[in-house]
Parts: sequence; structure tokens; C-alpha cells
Amino acid sequence: MKEACDALSQFAVGWKAQVVSAHRTPERLFEFSRNAADEGYRIIIAGAGGAAHLPGMIASMTPLPVLGVPVQSRALSGLDSLLSIVQMPKGVAVGTLAIGTAGAYNAGLLAAQMLGSHDDALRQRIAEWKAARADEVLANADLGQG
Amino acid sequence: MKEACDALSQFAVGWKAQVVSAHRTPERLFEFSRNAADEGYRIIIAGAGGAAHLPGMIASMTPLPVLGVPVQSRALSGLDSLLSIVQMPKGVAVGTLAIGTAGAYNAGLLAAQMLGSHDDALRQRIAEWKAARADEVLANADLGQG
Amino acid sequence: MKEACDALSQFAVGWKAQVVSAHRTPERLFEFSRNAADEGYRIIIAGAGGAAHLPGMIASMTPLPVLGVPVQSRALSGLDSLLSIVQMPKGVAVGTLAIGTAGAYNAGLLAAQMLGSHDDALRQRIAEWKAARADEVLANADLGQG
Amino acid sequence: MKEACDALSQFAVGWKAQVVSAHRTPERLFEFSRNAADEGYRIIIAGAGGAAHLPGMIASMTPLPVLGVPVQSRALSGLDSLLSIVQMPKGVAVGTLAIGTAGAYNAGLLAAQMLGSHDDALRQRIAEWKAARADEVLANADLGQG
Amino acid sequence: MKEACDALSQFAVGWKAQVVSAHRTPERLFEFSRNAADEGYRIIIAGAGGAAHLPGMIASMTPLPVLGVPVQSRALSGLDSLLSIVQMPKGVAVGTLAIGTAGAYNAGLLAAQMLGSHDDALRQRIAEWKAARADEVLANADLGQG
Amino acid sequence: MKEACDALSQFAVGWKAQVVSAHRTPERLFEFSRNAADEGYRIIIAGAGGAAHLPGMIASMTPLPVLGVPVQSRALSGLDSLLSIVQMPKGVAVGTLAIGTAGAYNAGLLAAQMLGSHDDALRQRIAEWKAARADEVLANADLGQG
Amino acid sequence: MKEACDALSQFAVGWKAQVVSAHRTPERLFEFSRNAADEGYRIIIAGAGGAAHLPGMIASMTPLPVLGVPVQSRALSGLDSLLSIVQMPKGVAVGTLAIGTAGAYNAGLLAAQMLGSHDDALRQRIAEWKAARADEVLANADLGQG
Amino acid sequence: MKEACDALSQFAVGWKAQVVSAHRTPERLFEFSRNAADEGYRIIIAGAGGAAHLPGMIASMTPLPVLGVPVQSRALSGLDSLLSIVQMPKGVAVGTLAIGTAGAYNAGLLAAQMLGSHDDALRQRIAEWKAARADEVLANADLGQG
Repeated sequence: MKEACDALSQFAVGWKAQVVSAHRTPERLFEFSRNAADEGYRIIIAGAGGAAHLPGMIASMTPLPVLGVPVQSRALSGLDSLLSIVQMPKGVAVGTLAIGTAGAYNAGLLAAQMLGSHDDALRQRIAEWKAARADEVLANADLGQG
Repeated sequence: MKEACDALSQFAVGWKAQVVSAHRTPERLFEFSRNAADEGYRIIIAGAGGAAHLPGMIASMTPLPVLGVPVQSRALSGLDSLLSIVQMPKGVAVGTLAIGTAGAYNAGLLAAQMLGSHDDALRQRIAEWKAARADEVLANADLGQG
Repeated sequence: MKEACDALSQFAVGWKAQVVSAHRTPERLFEFSRNAADEGYRIIIAGAGGAAHLPGMIASMTPLPVLGVPVQSRALSGLDSLLSIVQMPKGVAVGTLAIGTAGAYNAGLLAAQMLGSHDDALRQRIAEWKAARADEVLANADLGQG
Repeated sequence: MKEACDALSQFAVGWKAQVVSAHRTPERLFEFSRNAADEGYRIIIAGAGGAAHLPGMIASMTPLPVLGVPVQSRALSGLDSLLSIVQMPKGVAVGTLAIGTAGAYNAGLLAAQMLGSHDDALRQRIAEWKAARADEVLANADLGQG
Repeated sequence: MKEACDALSQFAVGWKAQVVSAHRTPERLFEFSRNAADEGYRIIIAGAGGAAHLPGMIASMTPLPVLGVPVQSRALSGLDSLLSIVQMPKGVAVGTLAIGTAGAYNAGLLAAQMLGSHDDALRQRIAEWKAARADEVLANADLGQG
Repeated sequence: MKEACDALSQFAVGWKAQVVSAHRTPERLFEFSRNAADEGYRIIIAGAGGAAHLPGMIASMTPLPVLGVPVQSRALSGLDSLLSIVQMPKGVAVGTLAIGTAGAYNAGLLAAQMLGSHDDALRQRIAEWKAARADEVLANADLGQG
Repeated sequence: MKEACDALSQFAVGWKAQVVSAHRTPERLFEFSRNAADEGYRIIIAGAGGAAHLPGMIASMTPLPVLGVPVQSRALSGLDSLLSIVQMPKGVAVGTLAIGTAGAYNAGLLAAQMLGSHDDALRQRIAEWKAARADEVLANADLGQG
Repeated sequence: MKEACDALSQFAVGWKAQVVSAHRTPERLFEFSRNAADEGYRIIIAGAGGAAHLPGMIASMTPLPVLGVPVQSRALSGLDSLLSIVQMPKGVAVGTLAIGTAGAYNAGLLAAQMLGSHDDALRQRIAEWKAARADEVLANADLGQG
């Protein structure tokens, strides 16, 4: 989940990372989720693998938006993680990203985009980064011919 | 989940059924799970569908054994339910049954078998029922020849 | 996708719905995506089925956050839609919801939650609705015993 | 399956391990299953991979509770093992755990929990272990901020 | 499994059909499998669904060839049946046919082909039937043009 | 496919191995399949991977029984091979074995069993080998206790 | 496969439809494939379901381009058809379309596009049809707001 | 995708390779797709992985035929790439090849075959290469006997 922090830092969005385990520390899960809005969090990103319950359980206990990252699991390559996170019932939403590190980065990016909806300077930074990424591709786009 | 109650009643095992929703009533989930052992429950059976978090979350909060039944979901026919329930990490166990009503009945049966490990009369009832089921098949086993 | 609108209306969040087809109207897709931020949109919700390219293509062309809803497809029940939407590469994020109508509703809910991060009254409405949903369950939680 | 023994030993529950192959030693399978209850076993844990028939076949011949562990298979990563064990028909129950070593450990844990339903000291040991696991997480929960 | 009998009758191969349930009548499974060769059976066809153990268990107890038919199951459409039957370990073979009624018919056909390896007249009947099937197609092969 | 030859040799069944590629040598496929019965073959074993057409195409052109072995493919681990071989339409049968080398060995074993239906000495060799395999397990069945 | 003919007719491309069954009429398959180029065919479209061997077998015997349409099968909804058609080995190519009627139509469309590469008027008809399809969407693009 | 170029060069078909990223350079995607026919391209081959939108998006914007190659992705081995490319809706066709390098080569081969439909010399080169491939197999077809 380090990639999520990297993405947030890249766009100058502050973050705080901590371990909350749905299965090992359910009390902490409850307290964290119940208090997150009052403590000033704006968005919660949660990663989990296998029978991945963390993002959905947090979402059930906070009015804040929750993003979920399916960790690539050993036996089933994260398909179990993905389905456990994304297939939430009507009324409890988790915005789910791709399996693995791409998804972790994108969770940070999407969180930045959400905050950018209310912050013109942040949205501008994101737009510029997107443009720069395109330029990189364009500078090396010719692969020859035969 | 009615089939689980049916199975328990069939073997004269008492049960109590209630709605506990991981996603709609997380506080109730918390209280129920934390107190179940002290309230005298011996085994907990939980059914859930889609991103099915209920059985695993209960298991994280009680020393009692937990059985999980994957409900057949609409889009993915319960494959999501199954993986969300069975793929628990090391340290939090859910004994998972088949998708759908067969699994619900079998959860009641397995609970009866668990209690039967300490109750000779109950174990005997189960053994007799198994024998009777075999007899039924044997009485109608001939399907003709050609 | 009507359910997404329903969810937004329920929380008094304004919305505008239009048809943008990645495959039939690519120019419109392009224009819509490029201009959405300037036209004052805050969040974009896109639903698509099968080889579902709409949410990801919009996300590639806007700094706004994009949510994707996998429509339940005929042959593969939406598994193709889900993978086509959620498995985005690093750098282009789509917050993906569940397959089908539950996902559509949850996309509206998650959008409301995102706006609620900057709107205390909206966040409060969401919190109250969650509490009411729990109360409904609690009022009917007893299923008898045997 | 060593992890199942480890879990049992950890909670001071006695166990006996032996090789019973459904496909190589069917006679032994029949004898073992038929006699297990009379020999004083309380719970049976069986692991198997691929077309995994052992747990279900034992369950068909004993009134004792049976737990099944899907071994991670080579070609299909244990998805075949999982479905072969968990999808039992109505009337023959196997409490199925996760694919691989996590599932093996959890089978031992779940067996201990089942015995703990009738043994306050054992249940107490399990509860204390769960609390200690949570404390470990809490001691290292802060991952920094940015 | 009626289609298997139909196929055998069509090629004038004698058959005997009976109910043997791996899970409900394990003793009968045992006796049937152990005695089948001595009773003069040449080939055994077994159909089963879900966690389908019957074909593999018979194969573990007889030197006769065993053919398996995966019944189309409710939740997983027979994918569980197929994997439970076909993924046998080295040393116990089940010749597996397609899911459902096509597979049942083909089990009968394959059994006839196996017997036809030692019976010229039978092999000739099969060859003629194949030729007739081709002729049927050829008589109606033109679908027009545009 | 070497394992299939090994199994046949082990039971003293003669075999002849050759390369026939459905996709690279279709003429050879046609000639081989059409002539196999007249050339004295009794059973045909064919292995193939990915879009695996060889076993089914042979089966369409010979009255002999055909066994198919799904080779473990690179991207999809043989699931594509398995479905391409086993899901044959009504009227063309392929007895399918497990994915990979276990399936290759079992194809040879099943072929031996088919011939053993008409050869008491061969069937006896198979029965003895099965008994010896069981004895091996029984000699090492005790795994200790705790 | 009628939809493929419809698409071709729509763009004024001539076609001829006939039944060629890989499994029922292998000789006809052979002759058709070997002679198709000399008979003046330019492109071959083949549909098949389950263990779908027709498109790949034709492709192995003709230098013409072959397009394949996976028919939606009963048990596995066409996933077997898709993998059997698309997963061809290096050296034998089948251009595969979507499962079911959408794929059948698109096979006709793609064939027209291939011919349109050498026929300006045809390519123009396709381009105009695409534009008209976009206009249809645009005329009804407004879905209201809330 | 180098294998696609190799295949084209092998049959003396000219090609031009460039980087066009649906997600990083959407403008370039639009320009390339809109202008490809006028710039004299005859066929477009596009490879993509994960949520693979490139081939379908190009196909939505050009009357030229488009071939798609699913790149083998990390978590899901290219199943996501395959479904994202092949499951196109009615009206936008992508001729899809196998996952990975075999598919890339076959895309070049299929493109050559499409051009060969209007170029007798090219079609002849393809036919000769196919014959040579068969000869290679035939020269080494004997694998011994036992």
C-alpha cells in the first residue's frame, strides 16, 4: 500500500498510514471507522487480500468515502480479494481499484482527484501530471517500420 | 438460512435465529459477537452473499466456532460469496459449506455433529439418520437394464 | 444506471444524465471528458458492459474522479464488464462498484460521500440515513427460535 | 497439513496424524471413517488436492464433524481442490477452510474452537491468544504520515 | 444419465443401471466397486454433480475402466462437477466427458467404442452411424447466399 | 505425453508414439484418424494444449475410443486445454484426463484398463499394482501424534 | 450466425452460407478448407460452441483469413467456446469475435472492413454507417437531470 | 508485439510501429484512429493488457479492420486483457488473437492473410510457409514405440 502514499505525496496531499486489521483488531476497526470523520479524515483507503473484509467493514461505519485495493493473494492471484471488496450490497459503497500495486497507486491518485474536485490548484497539478505523462510517450512513440 | 434451523430441529438441537447485518448493523455485529460465548451460544452459523463479510467478522470477535454459508448471488452465482467467506487468513477460521440451500442445511447438520462429539445420544440420532438415508436409496436402487 | 441518479437525489445532490458511448460516439466522449471539469462537474459516474471501455477512457481525459459501474452482461454475467473496468493500469484510476443495480446505486452513494467530505450537512444526511437503515434491521431482527 | 497439528498443539489439544488416501487406500478410508467415533476421535481434519474426495468421503461414513483443507494444486492453484471439497450435497457436510497452509492452520484452530465450546479453559486460551494477536498489531500500528 | 443407456442400446450393447451414491451409500459403493470386475462388468459409467466423488472413488477400487459424467450443478453450472471428476491424481484414472446430457450420451458412446475395439461388428455399427450422421448434415448443408 | 507411454509399458501394453498436429499437419491427422482402426490400433491417446483440437478431431474420424490429455498451457494453466478437449458435442466422445503429467500417465493407465476388460492377465496386473500402491501407503501411514 | 450474413448484406458484400461440421463432416471440412481459396472465397467466418474446433481447423488448411464466433454454450455460457477458438498456437490464426449474436454480427462487419481495405466505396459505406450510428445516439443523448 | 512485426516481415508485408496509449495519450489515439485510413494504412494491430481498451477504441473510430492482442497480465494472466478486447458490443468489431506472444505473431499472420486475399503472390507465400511447417513435423514425426 506504500504506492498509495507515494501517489498522495506526489500531488502534495497529506496522509496518515496505520495498521487496522479487520480480523486481528476488530475493536480498533470499529473505533477508527466510527471516529474517522470527526478526526478530520476526508477519504479512507484500505487494502486487503483473500477474504478481504476491511474496506467494506469500514464503509459500513463511516459516512466518508472508502476506496479499496485488492492485494494479490497467493493461491487465487487476487481474484478472491477483488470479489470480496467490489461486490458490496446496495447501500454500502467501496470504490475498488485494480489488483496489486497499480491499484494501490491509483487509490492514492483517485483520492487526490476527489479532493481536487474542491481544490483548483490540486486539480491543476493532476492535469499537468497527466499532460507530462502523455508527453513522455509522445517523445518515444516511433518504434520503426519494416 | 431456514434450512439450517430445519436441520437443527430435526436432530433436536435448540437454536435461536436473528438478523445481524455486518454492513447495516455493525454495532450489533460487534455486540453479538463479543457476547455470544457468555450468553451460552455454542456454535454460530452465518449466511451472507456477494462481498460476504459476516461470518469472518464474527469469527474475528469470538472464541466460538463459526460456520459460514455462501448465499447464491445474482451476477456471479455465489462464487463471490464463497471466496469472500472461505479464503480467511491464518488465525481466523470459518468452516464454510456449499453455496445455497444445500450449504445452509449442512451448516445445521455440521453444528449438530459438533455438539454430537460431546453428546452420545445426539451422535446416535445422526448416525441413525444417515443409515435411514442409505436405506432409502437401497430400496430404489435398481434402475433396470437394457 | 437510474439507481445512481436515485441515490444522488435521495441525498439532495444535483446530477445531469446523458448518453455518451465510447464505441458509438467517440468524439462526444472526447469532448465530454475534456470539458467536464470546466463545465463544473465534480464527479463522473459511467456504466458499461462487456468490453467496457467508457469509465477508463473518461478517466484518461479528465482530472475529475471517475466511478465505474459494471453492467451485468448476457453471456458472462458481468465478469467481463468488471475486469474491463477495474483492472486499469497505474496512472488512470476508476473507482469501481459492484456488478449491476447495486453497483449503480452505490456509485451515486459514493459520489455523495465524496462531496460530503467537503459538505458537513450532506455528510450528516448520509450518516442519518445509515443510522435509519440500521434501525430498520433492528426492529425486525428476531427470527424466532427452535 | 502440519500447520493443523501446530495449531492444535498450541492450544494443548491432543491429536493423532495418519495417512489415509481416498484413492490409494480406500479400504483404510472405510475402516478409519467407520470406526473413528468408537475409537474416541472427536473431530476429523482431512486435507486433499485436485479432485479432492477425502474429506467428503469420510463425512459420508461418520457422525463426527469433518473439516476439509483444499491443498494448493499445481495447474489450477487449488480452485479444483476447493470446489471438490466445499460443494457437498445436502446431507453430507464438510466445514471447508481456505486453500493452502492458512487453511490447514485454521482447521486446527476451528477444531480447537469446537472443543472449546465444551471446555471453558480451552476457550479461554483461544480468547487470550486472540487478544495477544491484536496487541501485537496495536504495538506496531503506526506507519507514519506524509 | 438416461442418455448413456440410450447410446448403449442404440449400438446393441447391454447395460445395467443402478443407484450407487458415494455419499449416501458408501458401503454399497465399496461392494459394487470391489465386485464389478468379478460380476462381469466391462466398463463403469458414473455421473455425479457438485463435489462429485463417485467416479473417482469407484476408479480407486476396481481395475475396470471408469467413465465420469459431470452433472450440470445449480450454482456453478457443472464447473465444480467437472473439476471434481477430471482432476484425478496420478494412478487413478477417470475418462471424463462433457458437462450434462451431451456428456452422458458420449459416455455410452465411448463405452461402446471401447468394446468395439474387440468386436468388429460393433465397431462397424459405430462407423456406419457416424457416416449416417455426416450424410444428414450433407443433405441439408446449403444455407443460401446473399 | 511420455508418461502415457510409461504407464503402458509398466503394464506390458505395446504402444506406438508419433507426432500428429491438428494445426500443422491436418492431412496427416485425417489419414491417421481414418486408417487407425484398420492398422490395428485399439485405442488412441492424444495430448494438446490451448485451443486443443487434436483429440476431438481424431474422435470425429475413427470408431476407436479416444482419450485426451490437456497440456498445461502458459497463460491459463490448462483450463483452456481442458475445456477445448472435454466439452465435445453429443456424438463425438473424448475421454478426458487431468491437466498435465498426471493426466498423461492416467491416459496410459485408462487405456490399459480398457484393454484389461478383455484380458484377464492384464487386468490382474493392474489390480496387483493397485494393491501394491496401497501397501506402500500403509507401510508409512503413521505420522505421529501430539 | 444469421447476423453475420445480415451485416454483410447491409454493406452489399456477397456471401454464401453452408453447414460444415468439424465433428460430423470432417471430410467436408477438409475439402471446403483446401478449396476455398481456389473457389474464390476471400474470407471465411465460422461459428462453433463448446469444444469449438471448426474455426481453428479451417485456419490450419487455408491461406485465407478466418474469423471465429464463439456460440453461447449451455453449461458454461460460451467461455468454453471462446477459449477453444481464441487460444490458437503460434502459426494458425483465428480472428475471434465476442460470444453470441453480437460476435456473429461483428464477424460480418469485420469481414466487410477487411474487404473495404481494398475497396474505397465499401469503406465509405462503413464509415457512413458508423457516422449514422453516432447521430442516432446524439439525437437522444439527454437523459434529464435532478 | 515485436512478434507481429516479425510475422509481417516474414511474408514481406510492410509495417509501421508506434506507441499509441489509450490511457496516456488519448488525443493521439483519436488522431491516429481518425486518420489511419487516409494515411494509407490497410489494417491496424493493437496490443494491450489488463483493462485493455486500445483495440476497441481504435475500432470505434476507423473503418479499417482492427486486430487485438491480449497481453498476459500479472495478476490474472491475461484473462482480463482477453475479455476486455474480445467482448465488444454489436457494431464495433475487433478480431482477437490468443493471449501473449503466440497471439502477437498470429495478428501479423492474420493481417498478411487479409492482404493475401487480394494479392495472389502473398497468399502463395503463406501457403508455402504452411506446407513447409507441415514438412518439418513430418520429418520428425516418429517418436518410437514400446
